[in-house]
Amino acid sequence: MKKIVTFGEILLRLSTERHLRFSQSESYKATYGGGEFNVAVSLANYGMSAEFVTRLPNNELGICAVKEMRKLNVVNNNVLLDGDRIGIYFLETGASSRASNIVYDRAHSAMATLEKGMFDWREILKDANWFHWSGITPALSESAAEACLEAIEVAYEMGITISTDLNYRSKLWKYGKTPQEVMPKMLQYSNVILGDIDTANFMLGIPAVTPDYKELDSLPELYNPLFKLCQNLKYIATTLRYSLSASHQKIGGILYDGQEIFKADVNEVTPVIDRVGSGDAFMGGLIYGLNEKIVDKQRTLNFAVAACCLKHTIAGDYNLVTEGEVEKLIGGDHTGLVSR
Amino acid sequence: MKKIVTFGEILLRLSTERHLRFSQSESYKATYGGGEFNVAVSLANYGMSAEFVTRLPNNELGICAVKEMRKLNVVNNNVLLDGDRIGIYFLETGASSRASNIVYDRAHSAMATLEKGMFDWREILKDANWFHWSGITPALSESAAEACLEAIEVAYEMGITISTDLNYRSKLWKYGKTPQEVMPKMLQYSNVILGDIDTANFMLGIPAVTPDYKELDSLPELYNPLFKLCQNLKYIATTLRYSLSASHQKIGGILYDGQEIFKADVNEVTPVIDRVGSGDAFMGGLIYGLNEKIVDKQRTLNFAVAACCLKHTIAGDYNLVTEGEVEKLIGGDHTGLVSR
Amino acid sequence: MKKIVTFGEILLRLSTERHLRFSQSESYKATYGGGEFNVAVSLANYGMSAEFVTRLPNNELGICAVKEMRKLNVVNNNVLLDGDRIGIYFLETGASSRASNIVYDRAHSAMATLEKGMFDWREILKDANWFHWSGITPALSESAAEACLEAIEVAYEMGITISTDLNYRSKLWKYGKTPQEVMPKMLQYSNVILGDIDTANFMLGIPAVTPDYKELDSLPELYNPLFKLCQNLKYIATTLRYSLSASHQKIGGILYDGQEIFKADVNEVTPVIDRVGSGDAFMGGLIYGLNEKIVDKQRTLNFAVAACCLKHTIAGDYNLVTEGEVEKLIGGDHTGLVSR
Amino acid sequence: MKKIVTFGEILLRLSTERHLRFSQSESYKATYGGGEFNVAVSLANYGMSAEFVTRLPNNELGICAVKEMRKLNVVNNNVLLDGDRIGIYFLETGASSRASNIVYDRAHSAMATLEKGMFDWREILKDANWFHWSGITPALSESAAEACLEAIEVAYEMGITISTDLNYRSKLWKYGKTPQEVMPKMLQYSNVILGDIDTANFMLGIPAVTPDYKELDSLPELYNPLFKLCQNLKYIATTLRYSLSASHQKIGGILYDGQEIFKADVNEVTPVIDRVGSGDAFMGGLIYGLNEKIVDKQRTLNFAVAACCLKHTIAGDYNLVTEGEVEKLIGGDHTGLVSR
Amino acid sequence: MKKIVTFGEILLRLSTERHLRFSQSESYKATYGGGEFNVAVSLANYGMSAEFVTRLPNNELGICAVKEMRKLNVVNNNVLLDGDRIGIYFLETGASSRASNIVYDRAHSAMATLEKGMFDWREILKDANWFHWSGITPALSESAAEACLEAIEVAYEMGITISTDLNYRSKLWKYGKTPQEVMPKMLQYSNVILGDIDTANFMLGIPAVTPDYKELDSLPELYNPLFKLCQNLKYIATTLRYSLSASHQKIGGILYDGQEIFKADVNEVTPVIDRVGSGDAFMGGLIYGLNEKIVDKQRTLNFAVAACCLKHTIAGDYNLVTEGEVEKLIGGDHTGLVSR
Amino acid sequence: MKKIVTFGEILLRLSTERHLRFSQSESYKATYGGGEFNVAVSLANYGMSAEFVTRLPNNELGICAVKEMRKLNVVNNNVLLDGDRIGIYFLETGASSRASNIVYDRAHSAMATLEKGMFDWREILKDANWFHWSGITPALSESAAEACLEAIEVAYEMGITISTDLNYRSKLWKYGKTPQEVMPKMLQYSNVILGDIDTANFMLGIPAVTPDYKELDSLPELYNPLFKLCQNLKYIATTLRYSLSASHQKIGGILYDGQEIFKADVNEVTPVIDRVGSGDAFMGGLIYGLNEKIVDKQRTLNFAVAACCLKHTIAGDYNLVTEGEVEKLIGGDHTGLVSR
Repeated sequence: MKKIVTFGEILLRLSTERHLRFSQSESYKATYGGGEFNVAVSLANYGMSAEFVTRLPNNELGICAVKEMRKLNVVNNNVLLDGDRIGIYFLETGASSRASNIVYDRAHSAMATLEKGMFDWREILKDANWFHWSGITPALSESAAEACLEAIEVAYEMGITISTDLNYRSKLWKYGKTPQEVMPKMLQYSNVILGDIDTANFMLGIPAVTPDYKELDSLPELYNPLFKLCQNLKYIATTLRYSLSASHQKIGGILYDGQEIFKADVNEVTPVIDRVGSGDAFMGGLIYGLNEKIVDKQRTLNFAVAACCLKHTIAGDYNLVTEGEVEKLIGGDHTGLVSR
Repeated sequence: MKKIVTFGEILLRLSTERHLRFSQSESYKATYGGGEFNVAVSLANYGMSAEFVTRLPNNELGICAVKEMRKLNVVNNNVLLDGDRIGIYFLETGASSRASNIVYDRAHSAMATLEKGMFDWREILKDANWFHWSGITPALSESAAEACLEAIEVAYEMGITISTDLNYRSKLWKYGKTPQEVMPKMLQYSNVILGDIDTANFMLGIPAVTPDYKELDSLPELYNPLFKLCQNLKYIATTLRYSLSASHQKIGGILYDGQEIFKADVNEVTPVIDRVGSGDAFMGGLIYGLNEKIVDKQRTLNFAVAACCLKHTIAGDYNLVTEGEVEKLIGGDHTGLVSR
Repeated sequence: MKKIVTFGEILLRLSTERHLRFSQSESYKATYGGGEFNVAVSLANYGMSAEFVTRLPNNELGICAVKEMRKLNVVNNNVLLDGDRIGIYFLETGASSRASNIVYDRAHSAMATLEKGMFDWREILKDANWFHWSGITPALSESAAEACLEAIEVAYEMGITISTDLNYRSKLWKYGKTPQEVMPKMLQYSNVILGDIDTANFMLGIPAVTPDYKELDSLPELYNPLFKLCQNLKYIATTLRYSLSASHQKIGGILYDGQEIFKADVNEVTPVIDRVGSGDAFMGGLIYGLNEKIVDKQRTLNFAVAACCLKHTIAGDYNLVTEGEVEKLIGGDHTGLVSR
Repeated sequence: MKKIVTFGEILLRLSTERHLRFSQSESYKATYGGGEFNVAVSLANYGMSAEFVTRLPNNELGICAVKEMRKLNVVNNNVLLDGDRIGIYFLETGASSRASNIVYDRAHSAMATLEKGMFDWREILKDANWFHWSGITPALSESAAEACLEAIEVAYEMGITISTDLNYRSKLWKYGKTPQEVMPKMLQYSNVILGDIDTANFMLGIPAVTPDYKELDSLPELYNPLFKLCQNLKYIATTLRYSLSASHQKIGGILYDGQEIFKADVNEVTPVIDRVGSGDAFMGGLIYGLNEKIVDKQRTLNFAVAACCLKHTIAGDYNLVTEGEVEKLIGGDHTGLVSR
Repeated sequence: MKKIVTFGEILLRLSTERHLRFSQSESYKATYGGGEFNVAVSLANYGMSAEFVTRLPNNELGICAVKEMRKLNVVNNNVLLDGDRIGIYFLETGASSRASNIVYDRAHSAMATLEKGMFDWREILKDANWFHWSGITPALSESAAEACLEAIEVAYEMGITISTDLNYRSKLWKYGKTPQEVMPKMLQYSNVILGDIDTANFMLGIPAVTPDYKELDSLPELYNPLFKLCQNLKYIATTLRYSLSASHQKIGGILYDGQEIFKADVNEVTPVIDRVGSGDAFMGGLIYGLNEKIVDKQRTLNFAVAACCLKHTIAGDYNLVTEGEVEKLIGGDHTGLVSR
Repeated sequence: MKKIVTFGEILLRLSTERHLRFSQSESYKATYGGGEFNVAVSLANYGMSAEFVTRLPNNELGICAVKEMRKLNVVNNNVLLDGDRIGIYFLETGASSRASNIVYDRAHSAMATLEKGMFDWREILKDANWFHWSGITPALSESAAEACLEAIEVAYEMGITISTDLNYRSKLWKYGKTPQEVMPKMLQYSNVILGDIDTANFMLGIPAVTPDYKELDSLPELYNPLFKLCQNLKYIATTLRYSLSASHQKIGGILYDGQEIFKADVNEVTPVIDRVGSGDAFMGGLIYGLNEKIVDKQRTLNFAVAACCLKHTIAGDYNLVTEGEVEKLIGGDHTGLVSR
């Protein structure tokens, strides 16, 4: 089985519990997460060989993150134990009309200070058939963006499928460059992109449009410019999220292969236990489906949407569900009957 | 006051908290439960004299279960302290589109190794006017089924009302006999049965039908064959459960006395705190109503449905509500206004 | 900045967690609260100078309450450390069709045994432009009612705006006097009253009416008698609460200035994390708006309703939200998107 | 088996955990306790028929206390559900050189407002052969002292053995009478007294002496005046406590039968998990031994001391140990080897 | 690096926290452990390649145990997912003079029902240079004993070093055979045995002696008969444990190579956080030292003793310390100064 | 009352609980602390007017730290809300022979990036009579060292008493300068220094000596060179710490006023709940005593030592004890008897 390599930052996640506000919380639940790592966890849960490449400090906190990787069956052979600190994010979980809130404390992390040349990508990717990165790494620092581009270029040269989650985070991108300056040359190698049209246009410098995802016929026209700019692009997918409140979401999805638009039914999710990482769960389902596991494109999209829905029911960043559980939901069983 | 005797297994229940998956949980909430015991707790809460007859190992865990019985005011005079182990079940509580999951670890328990002759049923039942058992005990082992039949036959001879919750559990019934081989001769003594038509037909070997519980007029025809096979049957009741998700249920009920169909209005329950034991809460309400406490059959059914709804709001297996709280809900007060 | 003085009792609040019933709970979450104190916290959170005047025992529990005041930035310069005990209330949090339940243990508290003359109100109020009290203090004891009236009269003489939350609590008022005997002379000084028409009529001895808050035009006729009896009254406001279940509320509001009726849109709140103190959050928003901070009356009402909604998402008695968070909700953003 | 009746107050105990100070604690562990109730629990654990007589409010908190009694197998047939509130005590657990601290909030409790005539003692005591009370009840209020004396006098008339733990608490005795005014006439009926010589002399109005418990021969002379004043006295016992720190105690004991002095070896207890109730554990052992269970007086004393030591290792007020566990410690096995 | 294979059962460990008794505990801390697995964890922590071979049920609980192995860096390539249940043990942690207590619930586990032929030992051991088993596996069942002997014989034929911890557990050995019938033929292949002389003599059927471990010169005479019966024996080691209380231990050790006695200094351990697994920590240190890592025998023994001491400070079954931490303690630094 | 100003960093402290290792901990207890802040808390607890000057980020975490200051009654009028992040430290609490471990994550904090000129020290210190700083601030960064010197120089010019805790932390001082390059010119203004002779000599560049603190007569000779180099020095104090294990400390102290040596008796502390901040507790007692509160120097030293001992019994960084509690311990009452 060829491995799938995802590359990015793994953060220590410190979250309040039981919907407490930061000022009420006397302790933080500690777990780990990060967009690209969350994707690797999904893939490992579906039985794939998933490796996560990152840089972590060689201290107790970095080591704990490695232990978590191992527990989750994500290969950690190319984790660089180096750098000063692990990135942290603090999460306050909202409810009803109160949004969740994230405080990032990830500047100066081992990944933010990553530099080109620190990884031997030819060696790392030699058994891989898929490379996944996201818009978070180039948002961390100029050197991290360069190091990410280096990896992409090697993957491209090696003929490996490349996927990208655009993952725009306005609280990042603070180092002096805009997404428009950095992302276009990185995205040109992508075969699969996850992101809504607005974000893609924004990052690629295309003028803003007003997509109506309910009008399927109108979408190809909006997606096509992206295929023009990203010449290797084969698939673009978008998570559709209708947010009634912090506790109530409706989730659907769109997949476009340059020719045909696929649309998944909208699912209700209420109550939301934890929505962080639900986009990554979608991405994990998408890669699982496209990486020769699910032939049918509609089914691939359905799988990604169902995985995304299930993620909302699980505390923490990653989607701790099996392929069977996702399939059960695709099959329409959302009744939640106790298995006994 | 004549006592009501329920007979079955009490399990140690180990559940994850805050919707954690098994693999995320570093601790388990420990409580106790089991279908027939849960019924006894309901009855004790309504002020009845309820006794639970079971077999438990004479170790610290068995003793803890006895202490819980005492706390809950369930008579434990005929608990046999014997056998090797207490049955355990592990519960992972779902949410939204993710179902709860139960892992049984109850094989070889004191109840599963119960044998005929271990209890002196004539003595136990001498002050009782009601005996309740469920389809779980005969599912545990052949000897447990025989021991259960022994109790039923004594109760029948003593002229005691007998009620049964069919409680089909597909993860049990592993000892070589099918429900169809075991249940018919046991059910023939029952005066009150709780179960849906499908399950009853399945257990009694009647061909499957397709009940539409919304068509009340069609139901007697479907229930009547059961009255034929179970010649002592006076009442059959069915919990109607429309499961929108693990967190959202709609609950109604049907009661048939061989002549007239009674139907209770459907109640919304959202969010669900814990649905395990909600059928037992219905059963508890039914026995409470039929045991001369509530003359009116419609009111009895309403009581059972309201008790079932309230159970969904309570963590753990048993329905910790008073008669007054059930009555308040029957009266239409579901507004949840704070009492102050 | 002139300070706002609120006066009343701060209680130790001991609540069960995770919807446990009292009999299931092996520990109580300890925090503090009380109608008038909760108002002060809201005002401090909006950046106002808020002082809370109360009487607390000079023991470890009283001192802890003072520390909580300080943490929440509520001025405590005139807290009288005296008396025998801090009032306590025990809270069991309901869900769905099961209501929350409060057990008061506040008799003989330092506030219940308060007497006239214990505070030097002229000194306390010299830098204040607003004085807030509620119907709870006169419900505690005759001497507390007298002490409250003393404060009101001084505030009135000093030309300070006076607001009152009627806050009728049927479990209080046990000392031999009825609200009708006590409240009218206290309410005559109020410039702002929060309460529904029924409660106001009940407390003022006006015959009961049947308000239909959806018929705005019918309301002035019902409110006007209150303006007659309370000659200083300028505003009366009512929280509209449609309680679908303990977990699902719809919240709106009415404001009447003696001439014009203002109505705020109804907001959905589900799930409810904690509804205790939501009326106080409304009151806090009202004072914030009327105290020259928000010129527009409609906007003031919208602010009060939005604050009330947000309170339902926060554990504990007080509304830990900023002005910006309330404004965001007024602006229609109830989507609960994660801020990152 | 004749029952042993103990009479007194059961309190809700709210304690900080993990040695937190009151001001650090966001929650309180809730359990129950009280000197005379703790004695009943010990006796029930040793297999005796133990009944606790008390008065509790008929609210959720009172009912929870009754459930705890049932769980602990203490008979609750004569609990009077009446009065306004349950007494509470708050406990901050110390360590090393920092002492534990108790804040009482028990004034106005159901027991403090108890009055003569509320219990039918002839009926209650008809199957009893032992009645136990302590110096706490007469310290609560004048009417409680009178109600206690009433019980004592009935017990005396019925020829029942009477035991008393002097239990002097300086934070009580606030109602206007001194121990010297109240206790002598109550103690004259006692057959067994637990207390050190200083406390006994203080309560009986005997001039202070300076006992040296290491000089056994000097003790009869000091104890004898107590036998004079308490003409029914047969045994007086004293717990010897050498307190090195809040975490390190040395425990011994003295028993005097009017003729011979018995002394138990001193045991080390470190670390102390919870020392509250350790005197009650001693009392429980003493009653167990003297009530015809242990013929040998030395062995009775050893049992009481060992029980007292074990109590220090158990969280909460009562001594959750079996007779076998106490016997094992008497036998010298303090090695704490794991039983497996 | 050649791998070290340990073979045995991994149990789900459910323990009370904060020294609570079973009857006080509303939840259990869940972790994993088992003598031979604990040894593997120690070795992995010291940087060795450690594999654990076991049989676990293919359910959620078995999978969780595998995740724990992965997290701890113990190779799980030859875990057989099969059988009915995971063994469980319940632990109540004592303090001071109260011993910890273990309730085993491990009958019928996947390991207890293990049979000869289920593992391909030649394949498993092909890259190994060490095989470790303990006296627990043959105590589980006759078929487990046979399966263990099978593994030993293959290891012996392959020339792999074999170590054994005698680990006598009186609560096991219930299947009809005595240790004397089973152990001698299994121990004859052992090169390294950990156990005190009494246990070794008992298991091998040698008459009991009275060793005085302080008289070093007297020991060879007592150890030598074991070398006679176990012809492959090269080292026998004994943990010396002086148990002052459940919270205070003194730990030393003896190592004998057939010629020379080595003795390690006694270390104080107080307070004990968790003593379960401390013998396994000794065994882990011993294997680490003897497996060519530490030439010096005295130093090997010192390492084992220091590892054992450190284990007492760590909650759970396994010794989560690094080689560096053990070395620091050997070096005499027990001062516990904060590293900052 | 003149205020005492302490200046330094307040960190978010994230600690494992119940002696768990980092890799075992699924949550972190969150509190705050920092050497100079801890001193301010002690002073506030003794009733002094204590202000803490620091720089904190203007985000939720910085605001939470300010709330904690308020709760603890430490004046926060001159907290600069600015900079990027709050410093964090992670604490793993040891036991017995296992030391506690700290992982610092404080680089790039608001205090580490502090620069000269950010505070208006003349304004801040105008009502102060004491200024306290420690060796931690100059260890953070060159600019922080400069900003600290600026404050010291202003304080000196204003004639304010200056105290310093040397607080050498080897894990800091990473910015390129050594203590010897930075500290001498800062320490020349100090009137009171806390630190052992070794550290003082090291920081001031004096050759190492071998102090024997038991030989009081030998000490002046060793302290005198420090008085020479620090010409404003009036007092130097040293905490004597004999560390038997992480759980068992012996604490004494030395005070030298340039003429006379004072020595406090050594106190046992076992078990240690939390030793972090115990030096700061000593410093807090010293300032309290020297700042005209305690005339007697011996008594001042005794107070500092007793405060230090008590700190070991309190979880968290700061010493939550009252003056009365310290005095009680000085008086010799270390028996830990329950106050009731």
